[in-house]
Amino acid sequence: MAKAEYTLDSVRGALIREEDTIIYGLIERAKFPTNSQTYTHNYTGIPGFSGSLLHFVVINTEAVQAKAGRYKNLEENPFFPENLPPSLVTSYPFTQFLHAGTASININKSIWKLYIHELLPLFVASGDDGNYAQTAASDLSLLQAISRRIHYGKFVAEVKFRESPQDYEPLIRAKDTEGLMKLLTFESVEEMVRKRVEKKAMLYGKDVTLNNDDDDNDGNIKKYKVDPSVASTLYKKWLIPLTKDVQVEYLLNRLD
Amino acid sequence: MAKAEYTLDSVRGALIREEDTIIYGLIERAKFPTNSQTYTHNYTGIPGFSGSLLHFVVINTEAVQAKAGRYKNLEENPFFPENLPPSLVTSYPFTQFLHAGTASININKSIWKLYIHELLPLFVASGDDGNYAQTAASDLSLLQAISRRIHYGKFVAEVKFRESPQDYEPLIRAKDTEGLMKLLTFESVEEMVRKRVEKKAMLYGKDVTLNNDDDDNDGNIKKYKVDPSVASTLYKKWLIPLTKDVQVEYLLNRLD
Repeated sequence: MAKAEYTLDSVRGALIREEDTIIYGLIERAKFPTNSQTYTHNYTGIPGFSGSLLHFVVINTEAVQAKAGRYKNLEENPFFPENLPPSLVTSYPFTQFLHAGTASININKSIWKLYIHELLPLFVASGDDGNYAQTAASDLSLLQAISRRIHYGKFVAEVKFRESPQDYEPLIRAKDTEGLMKLLTFESVEEMVRKRVEKKAMLYGKDVTLNNDDDDNDGNIKKYKVDPSVASTLYKKWLIPLTKDVQVEYLLNRLD
Repeated sequence: MAKAEYTLDSVRGALIREEDTIIYGLIERAKFPTNSQTYTHNYTGIPGFSGSLLHFVVINTEAVQAKAGRYKNLEENPFFPENLPPSLVTSYPFTQFLHAGTASININKSIWKLYIHELLPLFVASGDDGNYAQTAASDLSLLQAISRRIHYGKFVAEVKFRESPQDYEPLIRAKDTEGLMKLLTFESVEEMVRKRVEKKAMLYGKDVTLNNDDDDNDGNIKKYKVDPSVASTLYKKWLIPLTKDVQVEYLLNRLD
């Protein structure tokens, strides 16, 4: 989602495109059953490592990606920022758009917990097929997409702040979290997002044969790889509120 | 795609489901422009490493996945099998379905070359946005999906062989590659696969808004994230023929 320039339009476009990535991610994770061994503490028995297999795969894949320069783009936020190795590649001149000191805003620890304990049980079939590494890899892709969406709130907030600083500055100075949240909330837009992601989940998660028609309204939920209501629940319960939390947190630090 | 049992139906189902993964992968890779620095030899300048950034990301991510047990499932074939670290996790009892000695059939070196030099130029916009690590990660997912599809030919061949060994054995003993290829070729099925993946690429790669209708036939190609003809070309030129090559290679080793 790197953009040479960030504008209300570009930020809106990036969020809409990220919906697709998240829905593909849900569908791909649903290929595998729960595979609970992926999440069990110390199933791995890996010498010198204490944690779940998911933890092992994520922390080590993030290390590879960090060396390859992933986190030089501030749209990306690691799940294990502690002891992340530095980039080993020539630096690319990413636009420095965010206010200094806000890069450290990172709520991935909360995202991690809600993903495992609340989101997965909503859409993954119970069972064990032994593909724990593959499961962890698809978890990582989906976690990264969700995290990118939520932390993109920093860019949304910066764009909005630059558009009308006069609206934000008094609230920031008063540390008026509630007032900021109100200023960032548009019920009708949120409702539209939830409806759109549900529609996308229907289209993208369809079982396609050459002779079925493309009517979405035949009420046959079994043909979807992920129940479309899971996508709208994900947005309603977590993605929309958490993106706003990140925006508020960003704005509270915007004048420092 | 692990199955407790492999049958003609289960194998067919796995191949159809893999089409979706491949199309999501194409769409996700198309999020990024070419980003040619990802593929340039020695752009990385990583101490002690000689190769492209893609090479660096794939070989190191495969090492993490290998430790997590990925390649214990013979449906998975690494791009860099040389010096792959062993699995560090408790072994899962995967069904041993393939004939002994066929696990080493691996045409990933050819897949790697055609992916970079022939497939990518077909559907990726030219340009550079600096997201090389992210680009390499999406390349890896797509490469793995394509490789899984093609090497699944081993399972297809084993199922077919068990169904009617009397048809295959004489051809295998005569090393009749052409005869085997003929026995494995069903033009009408291949045509159906190409049409179905094109239809899937249309549905899954659509830009969705709340008020557009779902008509696929309005001839507006711009609304697709990846030109649907790329999906059918990929299947026609590479996936279908290479899967058959793997089947023939497998069968030629089936009686050893």
